[in-house]
Amino acid sequence: MQIKIGIYGYGNLGKGVENAIRQNQDMKLEAVFTRRDPSALHVLTPGVAVCAASDVEKYIGKLDIIVICGGSATDLPVQTPALAEHFSVIDSFDTHARIPEHFANVDAAAKRGKNVAMISVGWAPGMFSLNRLLAEAILPNGKDYTFWGKGVSQGHSDAVRRIPGVLDARQYTIPVQSAVDAVRAGECPTLSVREKHTRECFVVAEDGADLARIEKEIKEMPNYFADYDTTVHFITAEEMKRDHSGIPHGGSVIRSGKTGAFCENTHVIEYSLKLDSNPEFTASVIVAYARAIHRLAQEGQSGCKTIFDVPPAYLSPKTTEELLHTLL
Amino acid sequence: MQIKIGIYGYGNLGKGVENAIRQNQDMKLEAVFTRRDPSALHVLTPGVAVCAASDVEKYIGKLDIIVICGGSATDLPVQTPALAEHFSVIDSFDTHARIPEHFANVDAAAKRGKNVAMISVGWAPGMFSLNRLLAEAILPNGKDYTFWGKGVSQGHSDAVRRIPGVLDARQYTIPVQSAVDAVRAGECPTLSVREKHTRECFVVAEDGADLARIEKEIKEMPNYFADYDTTVHFITAEEMKRDHSGIPHGGSVIRSGKTGAFCENTHVIEYSLKLDSNPEFTASVIVAYARAIHRLAQEGQSGCKTIFDVPPAYLSPKTTEELLHTLL
Repeated sequence: MQIKIGIYGYGNLGKGVENAIRQNQDMKLEAVFTRRDPSALHVLTPGVAVCAASDVEKYIGKLDIIVICGGSATDLPVQTPALAEHFSVIDSFDTHARIPEHFANVDAAAKRGKNVAMISVGWAPGMFSLNRLLAEAILPNGKDYTFWGKGVSQGHSDAVRRIPGVLDARQYTIPVQSAVDAVRAGECPTLSVREKHTRECFVVAEDGADLARIEKEIKEMPNYFADYDTTVHFITAEEMKRDHSGIPHGGSVIRSGKTGAFCENTHVIEYSLKLDSNPEFTASVIVAYARAIHRLAQEGQSGCKTIFDVPPAYLSPKTTEELLHTLL
Repeated sequence: MQIKIGIYGYGNLGKGVENAIRQNQDMKLEAVFTRRDPSALHVLTPGVAVCAASDVEKYIGKLDIIVICGGSATDLPVQTPALAEHFSVIDSFDTHARIPEHFANVDAAAKRGKNVAMISVGWAPGMFSLNRLLAEAILPNGKDYTFWGKGVSQGHSDAVRRIPGVLDARQYTIPVQSAVDAVRAGECPTLSVREKHTRECFVVAEDGADLARIEKEIKEMPNYFADYDTTVHFITAEEMKRDHSGIPHGGSVIRSGKTGAFCENTHVIEYSLKLDSNPEFTASVIVAYARAIHRLAQEGQSGCKTIFDVPPAYLSPKTTEELLHTLL
């Protein structure tokens, strides 16, 4: 019996979820829900219903789980609690400061509906959070560092695009190699924001725009760039399309800690990701956790869960026997 | 209320567990059990009872968990089931082929005693197994690689020590950098045993021993060395003591996989460890999981668990609230 999945929102993340489902034989995409005109939306998987988002309640009882692929700013705070009343759901909510509030709203809704909901699944938050927890529990006498990139930051790219005279922009966050090396060597350095990452911008400017002014506005933009060493490159629209149309990302969570009677031994734990496509990898994590949520729901559990609550075995299609024989 | 822990077996691993407990304020070492003469054993922590292993049943009801620090070959297959009848227990059983059998024996005993037992905890098996499971669930269309070292292999060191004319030996397993680099680049190479690791031996020989014969015996030893490129260095006992008395180890689990409509995107997940002391890091993992077992036992669970069964939150001394606010 395949797990019947719905996708709610069909942007980059929704498409990634669709592709990830195709790699898992115990799952089946049943329906895609969109706020756009359903008749204009063509999905990749044959035989999948494309429905108006407003029709989702017609699928109550017909789906095991809905993967909600909206944005964290305004979509998910509304969509996830609303859908959790009627379905088991999973989202990738990533506004860190608002996670406790989102958790409480989703938990109440899921308990009312006797469903299982899971929030903030992906790699950051998600696998990075999990690895911080594990490393901190194993090496309590230590310190952890998170490095981002090399990868595209959507938020920073958008900020550059808002500058007058900018037609398009792509911003890469790049970890400072000497800082990464020092942390990997177990040195526990104290690192300023500037010492951890640099920022590189590729900008398509309007004809005749004042490039020096644009570069200055980028480099001095508070919060986004002022605290970093930033490089700005002006390129053509063709170069942008040719060289910067991917959405790569990645990074590392590294913890070093001391053990021994005199804290004489140093250990370094590193979890690193190198991703060609940020949304497709996030989608792959979500789909693995969708399997886990379905199992928790089958056990009769309800309420909101996070990546911290799920026994790892629940992510795998393998049986306990297979896990013992092949993976442990 | 601190978690009351007993240590059964006081070698390198047992001492590591003692030191790890001292880093966790919610835990207390109550007793050390030894097969040696208890009056001759001096432990680091003040106020801890040192008892004969045969007296362990006097502690029934007085300990929350016993960490069993015996060897996998002959100790743990007997000790873990025997103790699981009376205590919640944890071990680091690492004979991969016999894990299913050990699991079944321990599970039956723990269920009879209504205790929680956990086997094969550490980093290999342990954190490496966990990361293989997670990466495989996230990227089903992929391949994983495990590299070992640079680190001391006890088994290989022992094998060299058994050669006539050898007084002492230390064997390091070293990953082949070009192979690691190819895997990190997402290339999915097919690698022979020889292409993944080299072996380096430091040997103290008897005066007048035939060094060429010893070197040949090492390099041609089936299973242990014949399939590898091995380097042999003859050194003095003083050099051995000065340069090779540590027990470092580590390694990497790397999985690369493809996503996208046409499998056009590659992702690489890497989990790496660099450990100054193999037994102390193993002990640190065990102590974090001891906390989890105690919680499972408090919930009324029983039977044998593995690292795949434990919700990550159970490893942390932090509350759910704290985890949501600080780690997710």
